[in-house]
Amino acid sequence: MNQKLDKGIIMTQNPLHKIMSPSSISIVGASNNPMKMGTMQFLNIVHGGFKGKVMPIHPKEKIIFGIEAFANIKDLPVAPDLAMLVVPTHLIPSMMEEFGQIGTKHALIISAGFKEVGKEGEELEKQVISIARKYGIRFVGPNCMGLINTHLPLNTTVGPVQDLCGNVSIISQSGTYVAQVLSYIHNRGIRFSKAISVGNEADIDIVDCLEYLGEDTETKAIGIYIECIRRPEKFLEIARNVVKNKPVVAQYVGGNKAGAKSGLSHTGALAGPDYIYDGLFEQAGVIRVKTIEEIYSATHTLGSLPRLKGKRIAILTNSGGPATAMASVLDENGLEMPELSIDLQEKIKSLIPGHASSKNPVDLTFHMDMSLMTDTLPTMLLESDEIDGLLIHGIMDTGWAELAFPVFSAAIGLKKEDLIKLFTTNLNAILELPWKTNKPIIISSFFDKEDHAKCSFYEKGIPAFNAPEKAAKAMSMLYKYYLIQNKEISKIELSSIPERAIAIMNKEAINGIDEYTAKSILRTYNISTCKEILVKNPQNAVLASKTIGYPVVVKACSKEIKHKTEAKLVHINLKTDEEVFEACVKIQKIAKNSPLLICEMIKGEREFMAGIARVQGFPPCVMFGIGGIFAEVFCDRAIRIAPLSLSDAYSLIHSIKSHEILGNYRGMGAVDIYEMAKLLVALGNIAVHFPDIKEIDLNPIIIQNRKPIVVDSLFIK
Amino acid sequence: MNQKLDKGIIMTQNPLHKIMSPSSISIVGASNNPMKMGTMQFLNIVHGGFKGKVMPIHPKEKIIFGIEAFANIKDLPVAPDLAMLVVPTHLIPSMMEEFGQIGTKHALIISAGFKEVGKEGEELEKQVISIARKYGIRFVGPNCMGLINTHLPLNTTVGPVQDLCGNVSIISQSGTYVAQVLSYIHNRGIRFSKAISVGNEADIDIVDCLEYLGEDTETKAIGIYIECIRRPEKFLEIARNVVKNKPVVAQYVGGNKAGAKSGLSHTGALAGPDYIYDGLFEQAGVIRVKTIEEIYSATHTLGSLPRLKGKRIAILTNSGGPATAMASVLDENGLEMPELSIDLQEKIKSLIPGHASSKNPVDLTFHMDMSLMTDTLPTMLLESDEIDGLLIHGIMDTGWAELAFPVFSAAIGLKKEDLIKLFTTNLNAILELPWKTNKPIIISSFFDKEDHAKCSFYEKGIPAFNAPEKAAKAMSMLYKYYLIQNKEISKIELSSIPERAIAIMNKEAINGIDEYTAKSILRTYNISTCKEILVKNPQNAVLASKTIGYPVVVKACSKEIKHKTEAKLVHINLKTDEEVFEACVKIQKIAKNSPLLICEMIKGEREFMAGIARVQGFPPCVMFGIGGIFAEVFCDRAIRIAPLSLSDAYSLIHSIKSHEILGNYRGMGAVDIYEMAKLLVALGNIAVHFPDIKEIDLNPIIIQNRKPIVVDSLFIK
Repeated sequence: MNQKLDKGIIMTQNPLHKIMSPSSISIVGASNNPMKMGTMQFLNIVHGGFKGKVMPIHPKEKIIFGIEAFANIKDLPVAPDLAMLVVPTHLIPSMMEEFGQIGTKHALIISAGFKEVGKEGEELEKQVISIARKYGIRFVGPNCMGLINTHLPLNTTVGPVQDLCGNVSIISQSGTYVAQVLSYIHNRGIRFSKAISVGNEADIDIVDCLEYLGEDTETKAIGIYIECIRRPEKFLEIARNVVKNKPVVAQYVGGNKAGAKSGLSHTGALAGPDYIYDGLFEQAGVIRVKTIEEIYSATHTLGSLPRLKGKRIAILTNSGGPATAMASVLDENGLEMPELSIDLQEKIKSLIPGHASSKNPVDLTFHMDMSLMTDTLPTMLLESDEIDGLLIHGIMDTGWAELAFPVFSAAIGLKKEDLIKLFTTNLNAILELPWKTNKPIIISSFFDKEDHAKCSFYEKGIPAFNAPEKAAKAMSMLYKYYLIQNKEISKIELSSIPERAIAIMNKEAINGIDEYTAKSILRTYNISTCKEILVKNPQNAVLASKTIGYPVVVKACSKEIKHKTEAKLVHINLKTDEEVFEACVKIQKIAKNSPLLICEMIKGEREFMAGIARVQGFPPCVMFGIGGIFAEVFCDRAIRIAPLSLSDAYSLIHSIKSHEILGNYRGMGAVDIYEMAKLLVALGNIAVHFPDIKEIDLNPIIIQNRKPIVVDSLFIK
Repeated sequence: MNQKLDKGIIMTQNPLHKIMSPSSISIVGASNNPMKMGTMQFLNIVHGGFKGKVMPIHPKEKIIFGIEAFANIKDLPVAPDLAMLVVPTHLIPSMMEEFGQIGTKHALIISAGFKEVGKEGEELEKQVISIARKYGIRFVGPNCMGLINTHLPLNTTVGPVQDLCGNVSIISQSGTYVAQVLSYIHNRGIRFSKAISVGNEADIDIVDCLEYLGEDTETKAIGIYIECIRRPEKFLEIARNVVKNKPVVAQYVGGNKAGAKSGLSHTGALAGPDYIYDGLFEQAGVIRVKTIEEIYSATHTLGSLPRLKGKRIAILTNSGGPATAMASVLDENGLEMPELSIDLQEKIKSLIPGHASSKNPVDLTFHMDMSLMTDTLPTMLLESDEIDGLLIHGIMDTGWAELAFPVFSAAIGLKKEDLIKLFTTNLNAILELPWKTNKPIIISSFFDKEDHAKCSFYEKGIPAFNAPEKAAKAMSMLYKYYLIQNKEISKIELSSIPERAIAIMNKEAINGIDEYTAKSILRTYNISTCKEILVKNPQNAVLASKTIGYPVVVKACSKEIKHKTEAKLVHINLKTDEEVFEACVKIQKIAKNSPLLICEMIKGEREFMAGIARVQGFPPCVMFGIGGIFAEVFCDRAIRIAPLSLSDAYSLIHSIKSHEILGNYRGMGAVDIYEMAKLLVALGNIAVHFPDIKEIDLNPIIIQNRKPIVVDSLFIK
């Protein structure tokens, strides 16, 4: 099935190509009782337009709602492309076995009661997996809500699909976000291409789905609801590839205590900390959103409209409040609202009331002639080369008429139909405009589908929202994707392991790693550290200090001591032999016989931290942030998954909120970012080369003469 | 009209009591053309149920839609309680004059074209104000959309009101948020008590409206859309009073770049307008929201439901995803989801499927029996003493049936009515439950008003949202108000001016304030500074250093030099006579003849900053934040309006993100918060006492022995 598609997408052997487009389905769990879940799903398949063969299995009933049923799996005339199981949990293994025996290669397990309920369910799930492996069956679920493919069509969920096929595809760890939202999205003009409820992901997971949807030519934007990514490394690889051609939007909710707890009992998901997902999404080029509403509004916008090709937005409105609110959201998201040229303003002024504004926002104020907003002005704005996208607030027609009808009818006895007709706006021009000008338009008005104008936008696929902030937010999603597509991406840098590092790890570091050894390893990766000499006694410390040059720092150096500063085992800025000698004596009084580390005193005001963290279920992460003793409180840090490319490292550096410090701050000179990026890339390499090292904490890294120098280093094995 | 109401609310002479409840209205600008704004407003008044007298003025028409019209204002049989003007701008002054002459005392000016369009309009507006003053007329507008009082009823806007009277009142600087949202709020079960579009606020402003609504017994929650508060000091006073009894929610959107730039110099930029509003709202006990949607959802929730009396929330759901999303929002907002007691869990378990969770969230998973969610379980949960509020996701009935109808009908030939009937849930129990148990319930499901269950919640005033995150966010609004009502508030501390401070200001500080003088003033307010001596030459510097005790800091001290560190005019940690002498020589080489300030070297690792900023249109603000040379980048600071109470000061200190540093951080000992609070209160006093001092910047304030000591101080006159 390997074939080349548009834009060089290679279609893989991904099992979802068959699962999402089977030509025959056998369902176990449907009956003639319409209030049962399996029956509802069966009815949705049969009456939802599926053109392939549907073969229900039922021990007693011969016909299920007009379709021939089979008593046993082995009675089936052919092996179905897809087996669908909606039966009590304990029956699943034997049925999988039977489907395997007749040669079925794809399954969908709806039933719950597996690893999400604890030990026993976990065992059962393992059993199912092993049966599937034996027969080469690939399956979605268990504990899921099924699949939707509007282009086939096929809908295996309990909720009927009302719409024509669309271009938004959803992957969800919650079945609800596939099956309960069908009315919600219909009411907002959003149409599925595909939707997949992945459940416990015992076999097929989010990553498989992402790969499949990346290859699916009918999918234009992908949304993912995530409680946990089980294969983050593969996710990163696949997502990086997919976002080159289509936008991916994700909501992750497992990042705090409450969310993680709730997710565990839901799909047995082990959630990771929020910052890891931030880093992962950033690195992958996935747009992170905070709510399910945003998943749908963002994918709808990204999937329907021409892409934004710059950051210049115009606002057209009949009301100042919504325009100000939209402007505020645009500003927060890095978009600009340029003042229109004098020429363009003159043209606009000739059309609008005297007290109205032509600058941008173009604000008509209260105005009864809708054609200005639906044709003349949008065309003028979008056809100019001054703006890249347009937000409009206030196009409304029959919604308003409906509302006003009782009053109008009482006053002038107009019939409702006539009033509605009177108010129905001609939208022909604006409905074509985004595609004619190849620029996005997003609409806001306070009406819902009771308004003809709103419905027309819904039908045409022009995103239309019921609040100005949402429209502006949707525009910012287009901008985020513009930035992602224009991001420079370099190759991942994975060096070979330095011989010397291996030697140190096998010798000095064999039983734990002290600060001196840690820095020795760093130096084999060309990471700059302060100059330092390890000595045993105060006499040699004085000699070492002379070699290094005053002032110096003296520390205890031992694998056992973790918090040296708090234990008074660090003396800084020592300027004379006497000071060094005295400091060494004091240290060795507290930490008996501890070796002494004599270090160059690095002076600089800017302190950063970098490190490696390993989180269960994740590849090693490289962390970067503000350093010093207050690092924990400021907590201004970010992560990327190792190994890093140089562009990952640059992006990591710029991800911290106070990255301004790295510039020519207060005349300190700009930090050598290339050096810092190389340091982070090297850290990523160490993490990959030495899985034994559980954690690395370089804090502080002090900037001296614009270069980063590691001053303290903690390795934990 | 001064009378005592419930809860000790004193009713004032606020003109809105009459404006919102007139017994007669004269409107100028209505005609027999129904497409004119004035006519629409007239029709809304007449057909919206207003029971008082309506007297249109029209030069030619004798009858306007069945109502007798008058040719001139002076022809009116009585002076109307309220004059309403919807006429070309230039006619307003003469008409105000005429209404004044016949004795009308209240007006509503809808017409636009005043100060919002520039100089000429500004002049006209001034003229209107002066006429109003002459006749004692109080008025709303100009450039507004009118008023709504559903309890009278009276609706002067262009949009008809569809609903019964409610308890949410809105004050808006955008007419749209009063007139265009009527269908929007109707569709969501939100009902106005009052709504006021304030327009240009030439006379009556937000603050008057807030006072009025505070006194209005029919208003239970107040929402404000703000682009600018014209009387912040009064706003603070009134809001503080109002929030004791009813919640106030505000959206402020004026904090954009352009707005922030104007009127702010140098460190004024540190306190951008957005910060000021954050501080003002925090101090006033006003809940800040980000969108118009939140204004409505928050006021609806706060106005309708019993108040939250703690932070323990239960989630009841038939779907894990929404539960996880809700849990995540609760957590972010400081709410808790306690695991239910074993006893309660046992009771729940006996009712729900085996694989379902009883912990919290209580997750039924897919379940067809709605009565568990609409009666048994909510009652059990709310009647327990284990939780304070309940979130429910997944109650839905006919919306689902409508959606499923085509499939059901194809399969079993059921009629639509029968299916709808079959699915209609009995909600009697849950609809009473919040008031029976005196605890809030908030609902989430993906259906809108097409669902009978959703509509029932709307009608009853139980907030019901179309996304789980919104429901959880609404619950957090109840919690925010709980915290506001339980906040300790102490009296504002405004001392008398120290004699010594007056003396310094009149003598040393007469032509500008150098660092030494600045700190002298601080000390008169009992603010601790480093010990310091001002000298003229290096010789005296050495003597001074001996007096203070080594190590010392030497700085140039001059009104002219603002950035001493960058100019190399500060030498720290000097330990010997020679070092001091040499430093002084170097300083006086750069800053010729500058006096020298010899200061005690304060040692401490925690650095804060405090200051005073004056922003146009605002009372002075006291600022507090993280100090040191990176203060600008971390930008972790907050403000309060001066003068401060001690509780304001405590709240200010705790407002910064990294307030953890003030605790016993890394064994540094907890900062003496009382001392820090006193310092901030004193700063507020200085700001009030000396309006001449434009700006104060104390940075750093170093913590030594747990006490704050001001080390550097900049006063700008």
